[in-house]
Order: sequence, then C-alpha cells, then structure tokens
Amino acid sequence: MSVLVVGSVALDSVKTPFGAVSDALGGSGTYFSVAASFFTEVSLVAVVGTDFPEEYIDFFKARGIDTSGLTVEEGETFRWAGVYGFDLNDRDTIETRLNVFEGFRPVIPKSRVNSEFVFLGNIIPALQSSVLDQVARPRLVTCDTMNFYIEGYREDLLETMKRVDVMVLNDAECRQITGEPNLIKAARKVLELGPTTVIVKKGEHGALMATPDVFFSAPAYPCESVFDPTGAGDAFAGGFMGHIGATGDISEVNLRRAVIYGTVMASFCVEQFSVDGMTSIDRSDIERRFRMLKQVSHFEP
Amino acid sequence: MSVLVVGSVALDSVKTPFGAVSDALGGSGTYFSVAASFFTEVSLVAVVGTDFPEEYIDFFKARGIDTSGLTVEEGETFRWAGVYGFDLNDRDTIETRLNVFEGFRPVIPKSRVNSEFVFLGNIIPALQSSVLDQVARPRLVTCDTMNFYIEGYREDLLETMKRVDVMVLNDAECRQITGEPNLIKAARKVLELGPTTVIVKKGEHGALMATPDVFFSAPAYPCESVFDPTGAGDAFAGGFMGHIGATGDISEVNLRRAVIYGTVMASFCVEQFSVDGMTSIDRSDIERRFRMLKQVSHFEP
Repeated sequence: MSVLVVGSVALDSVKTPFGAVSDALGGSGTYFSVAASFFTEVSLVAVVGTDFPEEYIDFFKARGIDTSGLTVEEGETFRWAGVYGFDLNDRDTIETRLNVFEGFRPVIPKSRVNSEFVFLGNIIPALQSSVLDQVARPRLVTCDTMNFYIEGYREDLLETMKRVDVMVLNDAECRQITGEPNLIKAARKVLELGPTTVIVKKGEHGALMATPDVFFSAPAYPCESVFDPTGAGDAFAGGFMGHIGATGDISEVNLRRAVIYGTVMASFCVEQFSVDGMTSIDRSDIERRFRMLKQVSHFEP
Repeated sequence: MSVLVVGSVALDSVKTPFGAVSDALGGSGTYFSVAASFFTEVSLVAVVGTDFPEEYIDFFKARGIDTSGLTVEEGETFRWAGVYGFDLNDRDTIETRLNVFEGFRPVIPKSRVNSEFVFLGNIIPALQSSVLDQVARPRLVTCDTMNFYIEGYREDLLETMKRVDVMVLNDAECRQITGEPNLIKAARKVLELGPTTVIVKKGEHGALMATPDVFFSAPAYPCESVFDPTGAGDAFAGGFMGHIGATGDISEVNLRRAVIYGTVMASFCVEQFSVDGMTSIDRSDIERRFRMLKQVSHFEP
C-alpha cells in the first residue's frame, strides 16, 4: 500500500543557536515524504519552481518517493526563512515568499486517485478539500493545519475537517480551534467537528491521541540534542501515516503504534538541519527508538 | 513503615474561574499528608497559629496523620491568597502572610528520628537541611523547592540537594536551577548536583523521572474538570512517597509505580478546592485511575 501526501516543497533558510543553513530542502510535503518513505511507498503532490535543484528531485526518487505529482512551474520555489531562539521553542519567521506555491492547485495523478491513505499537509483548507474531491475512497485521511488557517480560513477549515478521519494539531492549535483551554476537553471538541481521531502534538511533552472512546498518551523521545525543530510535526505525520500505509491496519491498537513511529521520526528530524537527521539513519535505528519508547513509558501494574 | 513530612500548613484563599474559597485548609504539608495518608502512616511536622481551627487538627488525626510534630505558636497561621486566570496555568499571588511560619524551626519528634522515608516540603533550604540533621538514617529523602528559593537561596539549596535522593521539580524550576533549556539535559544536570533521581512535574503533560541510567515518562491523567490546581505538586509527592512508604521498596521499578500513584493523587487534588478532591475518594478510586493510566500509556510492541 502507498501513502499520498499533498503539501509544500520549499527551500528553507534556518538559523538556530547551533548553526545556520540557506536554501535547504524543506516544506511539509518534503518532511512527511522522507519520514514515510522508511515505511512505505509515498506519492508526493506539490509544486516547485524552475530554480528547484534537480538533485533534490533525484533525492526524492532515490528514496522511492513518487514525484509524478510534483509539478515544476515557471518561477521561484517557495522560500521560508526563520530564526529560533535559545530555547528553540519560539521562532521568528524572517521571510515567507510563496512564489509558485501561491498558485498551487493540487492535481492528483490518475494513478493515485485510488490511494487508500491520504495526508493533507499544511496548505489552504479549500485546497485540502479539493484533494479529497479528486480521490476515490480513501480508507484514512489525516489532516494538518496551522494557526494562520485556523484564524483566517476558519469556515473552509471546518468544511475540510468534516471529511477527515484523523486531525493532527499541536496543543496551541487544538486550543485555538476550539476556544477551550483544557487540552482534554479541547481534544474532545475537535472530535465533534468531524474527525474520529485527533492527535495533539506537544513537542518535548510527547503526543496525545483521542478518540470518542480512548485516550492514548505517547511519551516524547528524550532528545538531548535538539538542533532544529523545523519539520518535526510533518516528520511525525510521515512516520504515523507511513506505518499505517505499510500495515494497512487502521485499528486503534495500530494507530497507537503509528503515533510512536511518528514520535520516533520527529526525534530524528530535529537532530539535524533539513531532512539530514532522517536520511542518516536506517530502519534498525527506528526500531531501536521504538523499543526505547516502550521502555521509557513502561510501568508494572 | 511511615513517612515523615516537613512543610507548611496554611489557610488559603483561592479564586478560580469556577469559584472561590476563604481560609481553606492548605499548605504543602497538608496536601502531602492527606495524599500520603491513603497509603501509609504519615507524621506531619509544621507550625500553625492559635487561630488554626481545631477541626482541621481533628481532621488530620482522623486520617491517621500523626500531629505530634505539628506545633501551635502564639500568633496567626500562615495565609496565602491567589487568583487563577482562565486557563488555570498562570496564577497571581494576591497576598502572602507568613505569620508564625516565618519563625518555623522544624523539630522532629523523638519518636520519628528513625523515619525511613522523609519528604522535605517547599520551605527555606537551610531548614530542609536542619531536618536532615535531626533524622538518623533515612532510606529515601525526597525534596521539593520553588523558584523563590532557587533564585534567592541558591547556595543553601545546593547544599541541601547534596543530601537528597529524589528531587521533585516542575519543568520551569528544572530549567531555572540548571540554566539549561533542554529538559532532558536539565534533568541530567540536576543529577550532577547530588540527587540520584529527579522527577520533573509537567502538569497536564505528565511527569518525567530520570536517573543516571533511565528515563521514565509518565502520562498525565486526562483531567477534564480541573477546578483548582493549588497543591497538585504536593499531592503528587504525597502519592509518590505514600506508595514508597507503604511498600518499603525503593527499586526503580517501584519508583515508577510511585510516580503513577503521585499522578493519580494530583488528578484528584485538582478536581475540587483545598483537599476536598482527595477526601471524597477511597482507595478503590485510586486503583481505578492507576489502571486507567496503564491503559492510557499502553501500546503494543
């Protein structure tokens, strides 16, 4: 089975207390695809400009990522520049140049309209809906968003959410979308908006998955060397959906495992700039951290 | 086995978005003792004024809390007043009147100098050390503190910490005491200051226990009705030490269980004002939440 992802592919310039990079491979679609590619075949739908380095497209292909939905438009690739402060929790966006991403109209390749597992990366909610219009009958649709869309595109977002199975949010977004400060109540309220499952990403505090019946509290991986948090949420989603795509199992028991694989991929992601933290590992490294998280959260009855 | 606690007994006036109380039973020693009393015998060393209601002393005794170390001094009882904002995360202290607590010099009753399990509540670090001077050979000493002592009594606190086995801090305190923004690194640095174990309380995000060898990530109980967070940290410590006192087992496996019992007691504590959330339950309620936390954090390998 394979996973379809629609998102951004960008060239990021990032500065953290530990270093800086310019025009590094970034974007939600990129982080997601690279993370998911460890588990299953991925099809990436995104847009880049004519300036996008050919080597990056080769890189995607070499990882088994299907780029038939990655279109190249006349113009420049989406560029984002940001600076992280000392504690890596707050970041300032220095520059956002949408460039060709501004006119992005996702077109799902014919060969992928039957995709069973779909991830709607962090793009304009109406475009997320347009993706769902193009796919036949996905078994599981997971959706991400951000504060900007929650505030400025609320109605469209609520429409999209009605068609989504799993909503992935960070804790601030979960509170923002529901107006509820208590995170548990907020998670429940998200479930009233359509999704049957919500996953709240809490960074260094792990993740919380809620369904109408159960809560699952996933530990964070104890990262001592957080180098650059950019893309952690998308790497999380990539590990999550990658595992689901690989197993084809959408039971609650397997969704819990998928959350742990998401946690593991995010932990590798933040250890280096761009996708380097993920590309320097192999599957055995992933399994090792999975087992470590089992130990980290274990207690005897 | 029993647990010895040294801390404050106060009359709290608290206002939250959900209600208000005046001169309610509070203080670190109180919350700790009530939580621990579900598990084991507790001996409370503290000071109150002549205005302290007799009914509260009767309440302690009825719970099997030994009050032979609770002295009554001429003057008024320690009073604290605070207001919580909408999201219950930030609180403003309206008034702190130390009264008789200002001259508190803990004296351990002769019958308790052989206590095996000692909790140093949140008081001046030099007084915490004076308690350790008075006890013979405790098997496990756990210590709490706060931002005020970390900033203003740093040297004394570092001296106390050299003599402590388990340090209990919230995440902000853990970062403050070490100057390290990464919580995992910060926890490790606390271990370099003396304690063999550090427990970082993260409120709605659960707790993290670190030893030189292992990390344990404990889930938060999914509280939907947080009414008043006052005393949650001390109730946590009471459940933690209460379980250790009851079992006499200081193995790492049992410390993990103790962290879960601490989490459970904190979850009851925040559901009502003062200690009411804890006194309205029985032991079977505690076990039910313990099992619930096992389910909440479980995933299949």
